[in-house]
Amino acid sequence: MADANDTPFSSEDDRFHDECGVFGIFGRQDAAAIVTLGLHALQHRGQEAAGIVSFDGQQFHVERHVGLIGDTFTKKAVIDRLKGHRAIGHTRYATTGGTGLRNVQPLFAELADGGIAVAHNCNLTNAMTVQRTLQKQGSIFTSTSDTETILHLIATSREQDINSRFIDAVRQIEGAFSLVALTAKKMIGCRDPMGIRPLVLGDLDGAWILASETCALDIIGARFVRDLKPGEMVVITSKGIDSFFPFEPQSPRFCIFEYVYFARPDSYVEGRNVYGVRKNIGIELARESPVDADIVVPVPDSGTPAAIGFAQEANLPFELGIIRNHYVGRTFISPGDSIRHMGVKLKHNTNRKMIEGKRVVLVDDSIVRGTTSQKIVQMVRDAGAKEVHMRIASPPTRASCFYGVDTPEASKLLASRMSVEEMAEFIRVDSLGFLSIDGLYRAVGEAARDNEQPQFCDACFTAQYPTRLVDVEGSDNIRTLSLLANNG
Amino acid sequence: MADANDTPFSSEDDRFHDECGVFGIFGRQDAAAIVTLGLHALQHRGQEAAGIVSFDGQQFHVERHVGLIGDTFTKKAVIDRLKGHRAIGHTRYATTGGTGLRNVQPLFAELADGGIAVAHNCNLTNAMTVQRTLQKQGSIFTSTSDTETILHLIATSREQDINSRFIDAVRQIEGAFSLVALTAKKMIGCRDPMGIRPLVLGDLDGAWILASETCALDIIGARFVRDLKPGEMVVITSKGIDSFFPFEPQSPRFCIFEYVYFARPDSYVEGRNVYGVRKNIGIELARESPVDADIVVPVPDSGTPAAIGFAQEANLPFELGIIRNHYVGRTFISPGDSIRHMGVKLKHNTNRKMIEGKRVVLVDDSIVRGTTSQKIVQMVRDAGAKEVHMRIASPPTRASCFYGVDTPEASKLLASRMSVEEMAEFIRVDSLGFLSIDGLYRAVGEAARDNEQPQFCDACFTAQYPTRLVDVEGSDNIRTLSLLANNG
Amino acid sequence: MADANDTPFSSEDDRFHDECGVFGIFGRQDAAAIVTLGLHALQHRGQEAAGIVSFDGQQFHVERHVGLIGDTFTKKAVIDRLKGHRAIGHTRYATTGGTGLRNVQPLFAELADGGIAVAHNCNLTNAMTVQRTLQKQGSIFTSTSDTETILHLIATSREQDINSRFIDAVRQIEGAFSLVALTAKKMIGCRDPMGIRPLVLGDLDGAWILASETCALDIIGARFVRDLKPGEMVVITSKGIDSFFPFEPQSPRFCIFEYVYFARPDSYVEGRNVYGVRKNIGIELARESPVDADIVVPVPDSGTPAAIGFAQEANLPFELGIIRNHYVGRTFISPGDSIRHMGVKLKHNTNRKMIEGKRVVLVDDSIVRGTTSQKIVQMVRDAGAKEVHMRIASPPTRASCFYGVDTPEASKLLASRMSVEEMAEFIRVDSLGFLSIDGLYRAVGEAARDNEQPQFCDACFTAQYPTRLVDVEGSDNIRTLSLLANNG
Amino acid sequence: MADANDTPFSSEDDRFHDECGVFGIFGRQDAAAIVTLGLHALQHRGQEAAGIVSFDGQQFHVERHVGLIGDTFTKKAVIDRLKGHRAIGHTRYATTGGTGLRNVQPLFAELADGGIAVAHNCNLTNAMTVQRTLQKQGSIFTSTSDTETILHLIATSREQDINSRFIDAVRQIEGAFSLVALTAKKMIGCRDPMGIRPLVLGDLDGAWILASETCALDIIGARFVRDLKPGEMVVITSKGIDSFFPFEPQSPRFCIFEYVYFARPDSYVEGRNVYGVRKNIGIELARESPVDADIVVPVPDSGTPAAIGFAQEANLPFELGIIRNHYVGRTFISPGDSIRHMGVKLKHNTNRKMIEGKRVVLVDDSIVRGTTSQKIVQMVRDAGAKEVHMRIASPPTRASCFYGVDTPEASKLLASRMSVEEMAEFIRVDSLGFLSIDGLYRAVGEAARDNEQPQFCDACFTAQYPTRLVDVEGSDNIRTLSLLANNG
Repeated sequence: MADANDTPFSSEDDRFHDECGVFGIFGRQDAAAIVTLGLHALQHRGQEAAGIVSFDGQQFHVERHVGLIGDTFTKKAVIDRLKGHRAIGHTRYATTGGTGLRNVQPLFAELADGGIAVAHNCNLTNAMTVQRTLQKQGSIFTSTSDTETILHLIATSREQDINSRFIDAVRQIEGAFSLVALTAKKMIGCRDPMGIRPLVLGDLDGAWILASETCALDIIGARFVRDLKPGEMVVITSKGIDSFFPFEPQSPRFCIFEYVYFARPDSYVEGRNVYGVRKNIGIELARESPVDADIVVPVPDSGTPAAIGFAQEANLPFELGIIRNHYVGRTFISPGDSIRHMGVKLKHNTNRKMIEGKRVVLVDDSIVRGTTSQKIVQMVRDAGAKEVHMRIASPPTRASCFYGVDTPEASKLLASRMSVEEMAEFIRVDSLGFLSIDGLYRAVGEAARDNEQPQFCDACFTAQYPTRLVDVEGSDNIRTLSLLANNG
Repeated sequence: MADANDTPFSSEDDRFHDECGVFGIFGRQDAAAIVTLGLHALQHRGQEAAGIVSFDGQQFHVERHVGLIGDTFTKKAVIDRLKGHRAIGHTRYATTGGTGLRNVQPLFAELADGGIAVAHNCNLTNAMTVQRTLQKQGSIFTSTSDTETILHLIATSREQDINSRFIDAVRQIEGAFSLVALTAKKMIGCRDPMGIRPLVLGDLDGAWILASETCALDIIGARFVRDLKPGEMVVITSKGIDSFFPFEPQSPRFCIFEYVYFARPDSYVEGRNVYGVRKNIGIELARESPVDADIVVPVPDSGTPAAIGFAQEANLPFELGIIRNHYVGRTFISPGDSIRHMGVKLKHNTNRKMIEGKRVVLVDDSIVRGTTSQKIVQMVRDAGAKEVHMRIASPPTRASCFYGVDTPEASKLLASRMSVEEMAEFIRVDSLGFLSIDGLYRAVGEAARDNEQPQFCDACFTAQYPTRLVDVEGSDNIRTLSLLANNG
Repeated sequence: MADANDTPFSSEDDRFHDECGVFGIFGRQDAAAIVTLGLHALQHRGQEAAGIVSFDGQQFHVERHVGLIGDTFTKKAVIDRLKGHRAIGHTRYATTGGTGLRNVQPLFAELADGGIAVAHNCNLTNAMTVQRTLQKQGSIFTSTSDTETILHLIATSREQDINSRFIDAVRQIEGAFSLVALTAKKMIGCRDPMGIRPLVLGDLDGAWILASETCALDIIGARFVRDLKPGEMVVITSKGIDSFFPFEPQSPRFCIFEYVYFARPDSYVEGRNVYGVRKNIGIELARESPVDADIVVPVPDSGTPAAIGFAQEANLPFELGIIRNHYVGRTFISPGDSIRHMGVKLKHNTNRKMIEGKRVVLVDDSIVRGTTSQKIVQMVRDAGAKEVHMRIASPPTRASCFYGVDTPEASKLLASRMSVEEMAEFIRVDSLGFLSIDGLYRAVGEAARDNEQPQFCDACFTAQYPTRLVDVEGSDNIRTLSLLANNG
Repeated sequence: MADANDTPFSSEDDRFHDECGVFGIFGRQDAAAIVTLGLHALQHRGQEAAGIVSFDGQQFHVERHVGLIGDTFTKKAVIDRLKGHRAIGHTRYATTGGTGLRNVQPLFAELADGGIAVAHNCNLTNAMTVQRTLQKQGSIFTSTSDTETILHLIATSREQDINSRFIDAVRQIEGAFSLVALTAKKMIGCRDPMGIRPLVLGDLDGAWILASETCALDIIGARFVRDLKPGEMVVITSKGIDSFFPFEPQSPRFCIFEYVYFARPDSYVEGRNVYGVRKNIGIELARESPVDADIVVPVPDSGTPAAIGFAQEANLPFELGIIRNHYVGRTFISPGDSIRHMGVKLKHNTNRKMIEGKRVVLVDDSIVRGTTSQKIVQMVRDAGAKEVHMRIASPPTRASCFYGVDTPEASKLLASRMSVEEMAEFIRVDSLGFLSIDGLYRAVGEAARDNEQPQFCDACFTAQYPTRLVDVEGSDNIRTLSLLANNG
């Protein structure tokens, strides 16, 4: 599995994808310019498209564009149109099907008492069920995003003030969600009751900020204030910030995979430095699965911190035995009929000099389908490695995520249908070791996993989902808006 | 005033614009390709953007593009995506403000019991009032088009079947509307109770067609069946066609300006050939305002049929004394600071040889602001005309239209603030004659205007509006969706 | 055959095309803006692409763009880059094959003693032969345009000053050419020895202008000074204008087809008003081929002036029995497999009311392949005409043009393989009449054609070419630069 | 200084840039597809634009596009147009000024005896002088590339066969050049007499390959045959490969900066593994400039291999204390007037957890202007570093390169105007150490630099240029083709 900082890459797309990053600022000139920078720092959370809504005291302004932040929102004309001292933004990874602008957030609605824009990093587990109910009452959906469901719940709420409408809406949804909303007078942030996805509060010279990760605070020189608490809703106005807890209290279940792969290494999430956790993972891995070898080689770039930790703990040289080509864009299609299976080579090449004749420990963050691992191992063997030992910086991923991460169906996950030995054979390594689930919990600072009440959401490893899965379990799980996929 | 077949033209935009053409076909392979041809024939009714929705038995498909039909919908990839044996389409003229794709019709909604697409040629006079009510009930508007209001009325109707929902919706709207709608099983057409805008029924080898004008039937070799009646709603299914009359009966008030300028000369509207009416107008004009002159010169192309009629009746030579440059696109901006007032010359040039030393009768279809007329008269004088007599193929236009035509505010209309003598002086002609209102009624075949119960809508000449003007008269007339104007 | 003012139109492209218009101005601020307007007025001479080169006293600036002038050169950024008080421009029709920017004029070269830009309206009859010789001497060609041949001849001339180099170059070429060139100090214009293509001299408040037609002077309010004489070369500097005659004197042979179709009706070419000539053609035609009929109907727009003349002479009503859709763009492809042969209907529709039951005289300017005529006649019959009599405003076109007009091979020309009777049968008319060659000469003011020394180039009617055809006759007639056709 | 694998990055562009990569293959189906892959692997040598010319046995085909290989040449339509079994390609970095397609290689010319395409990685030191001579003889230049000069020399050669013409041409040029050329029958490769730029020979199942670096062989699974020798010219035909040495023998002077920064770490150049050399550099640096510190942190990604070597030699932990954002595109402009100096933060962020309270050794590959170093040091201090010691993996860069590398004028180079102590103060580090010139020579395997006859070109460190600099020294050094800069 390759790097979270990757631009997606067609046929070789063999990893999990986080779907969104959000960022908002309230009370600062050039608000949209700051959101642009914040979203750029969150680009690893979604590269497909982005949107920003600003409010200038009179009017809302919206821009949505396909592509990287740096390709679209840095044009002066675009930024100049986004007037105002408050703005929220969103960057997204394309999920299946519709890649048009229609699904790009933030979404906006004119309610009877004023406009509201909403962006979120989430996946609702009852969105389709709620949507069906709303349609029966006459709501018209123009996109397939969960955000529109939330927006309709706010619009059709019988409550009078916006806070109450918002609370009314979020109480009807289930799943993982970190929301930011902007109205004429307020910026609202909200995390789901278990705090599955991250959302942090920052401060830039008195202007409040909401962001998915702290790296988005660093880029603009903002101060990290604190993580929002699971189930917390904050309402920011020109008078200050208020905190609400609209849900029944529940035990927190932060997504542990954020530490393994999604979050940027320089971010602090839920109080922990991501790079530090990843090095710890490498250390735990070296203890759990030691190996007699000559060098430690990361699969760049996502395996690098764990490889450094592994090398230090194992007292082996850390070497860049695989070189990455950073120019792999989204659309590189193997040209020509006689040229196939180029995928891995487009992105990686072995550094033969380092590998030839060596016993190599390869460190990667996870195995999804296994096809990429297979090709990388072959490349390393072709470069003359004497032995190849694969060490994976997480437990085997056996189950799909329903909380905002794009995962293959469970049946496509290698670990769901093979034992570790079979996997070792499949990817053709001399040995294969995964981090244990308790090792992973140790790396994040816990003594071990509490199997009664797990401290994190680790459903992709354990298939123990912290919420109901209404849409999946119900019979009502067909997407109705098939039309929209065809719209340019 | 220049030609209805014109592409709009920046600074010199001195005429009325019709806002829409609609076309639908039910029960024919390559339905979208046929809609494309039909819309091409209706291009004079709107050049800014177009959209087509088709249904393939399983799924709806939609394409919306800015530009001419021939620039966008003739691409094979576009047409190929619009699968199915039934489709409706729409071509539009840009009104003030938002020119994004967001406002391009047809609009589509997924209702609880299936999808529906709606396109219309209309302007509702109570759209904003209805929209405000719907927003209070939780409907979210994403565009500023009246079509979305109708769509929400259908979606929120308590009726069960689609016919009843549709009827429920159209009974709540006021103004001028010719609608076509497409559902999984039906194509629906509907004209407002007074039949202000045209809508005709055609037949192509057993497939039913709805179109704004008959010229759209001719292009595909379809048979003209009949005009829809004012207030008529037709429902077309695979079993045939049913007719309904959901409104209180009212006296018809077809837009008489369609004969003067909007409709294509080769169309038959409400049983009358447009070219024939325009020639009659020229004949009536020659009788009402004869002039001792040498030649009759049309302001091309819209003044041409009346000029032919005038020349024949007056027994004067008809000559192309003004030559038109057909390459004037939408974006021709006078380049360079030292070059101004180029507008008329970009589009017209005098044919000096024909004009020099002559007493010229210039025939144009109408005078809006008068600025274009002024420049054309000057050009003709510069070419050496001895006398210039302007004859206008309609009465003075004094009042704004609220029924789907883009008109300046009344105060900008030359005829609203000047007498005919003052206008003659303003545009610097030796004589100026307008057709009388009764002359216009004679040209369309009536004995005279029935002032008690006028046979047509002639509000632009008489300021007698056939409907209430709820939005204009109410206090509630501020567009709320200002945000959307900023969206690319 | 349809209108010279047409945008080209794919599958139904059944007419001759002029290939170029040129325009230059020397000594006027906003020179490029004025060239833009001039080229817009010459757009009927070529719609595919355009280019302008300006000189600002220090530096040359060049812009070349595919598309209409109004779509490309009216952008402020484009015009602003074209600094300077002198500029030349060119608009072109695409010939076979390469439509890239590479062939767009003016072309520019940096010679040892300074830059020179050249644009022309021409076709050389010995270009390939000269090009082959130049290549053997080491000249590298990057385009397939004749202009580059001229540029290389100038560049490789052994003469020292630019006037002499220019003369040296034009003496080596044969064919039809009207050239404009711009150097740091001079604007040069030159017509071929027989003056086959037009070039006029104008004056705008002291700034000299060179243009293909007078309509380009009218648009900017410039004064027509005179036509350049056949074989004349004018050199314009800040000190004034000098005239040279570098060629052996020859009898003039201006292209008579300019009067029939290419030139704009409002232009004066070689002293004659084009519209006037076309009306005369109609008059001559009515005398030569009278017919007992009810109405005269032009094939719009190119048949219109002749139809007016015919109707006046025959004392028959002139009626717009065919209505033209001006929105036909370049790329309208018949969509859908079941829809074919839409071509004519995309552009024309009959005005049934005028035609039904009538004996119709159809007037068109020429017949090329005959396929369009066939379809138009069928349309008129379908509209109920009792009889259809076709009258053509020129003699039968039997031969290809090698002087800058895009014509089919002779064998594709209907008149090259059928008698008039056979043609009448082929296009299914009740009678068919062409203007005689002497009738055409009378229409332009001659008593008759001087068969010993014809007053005009009429090779397309007579196959009597006024020059040698070196490339065609030689064995050396293969285009060598086949590579470039693939370049985007 | 940041990574060779970088996409260029506006205002913070503080490093040297290599200007070109070349790749050719002869005798293999899907030749252009293979060139595409090869150029993708060479993308670090130039990101601005690329071109490919193929020959299909009959015809040459050419495609040139601005942007990354993966964005342009991977489209099926593009590759499909590039038919044939032999093809050459080029990827380039934009130099000053003209960024239009005009300068994109390969260039093509039709000579009298057939076509030839040429691409090169080079800079000629007498290009302008030669160009001026050619212009005087009548050659017309349409671009500002040195390649066109070579093409004209080939075209105007009096030799008869293409080998002799090619030799005639390359003997007249001076500077650094690695050329590939394609004719109807041959692929030719040639290195300048001192072999300043790299060029390697490869083999793919019998098809010969020429490429700038071995990483381009790896991606397609080709076998590395050997480096071309300095001054060697190889001619590949369907019969095999011939080798020529057209120049006077000279001592080799390969560019030593290829090892420091330009080449990809996994490539072998002139027999040495680049990553290995860079690690050696780190080892030498640790020996020459040891420091008492806690961690070694690379400036990613270009400082990483040297930092690994340094850490191993110094026995200090290697840590990713700076995290790189790989999404920085070419056009990221600091948005908003109140936000400035964002450059470094857009691309790098500190990993505070690793740095806080530590004595940090920062390893970077070079210092150019010093502004980026200054900002990175400040970031590291802001993250709480106790001490910052900068170690640079090359000697101070004091002089401009005239051999195909884009360098600032010497006066802008920090090392040209400051001592090491002053530089340390300027960038605000506790200590600063550069590798010595002998240390660099040791790292590549030499005992020391031979000051009499240096083994490499190291002019950027020593200002000792291996060739004459005719254009720079002559008075004739003004670019004449200023016009072309304005062409889009």
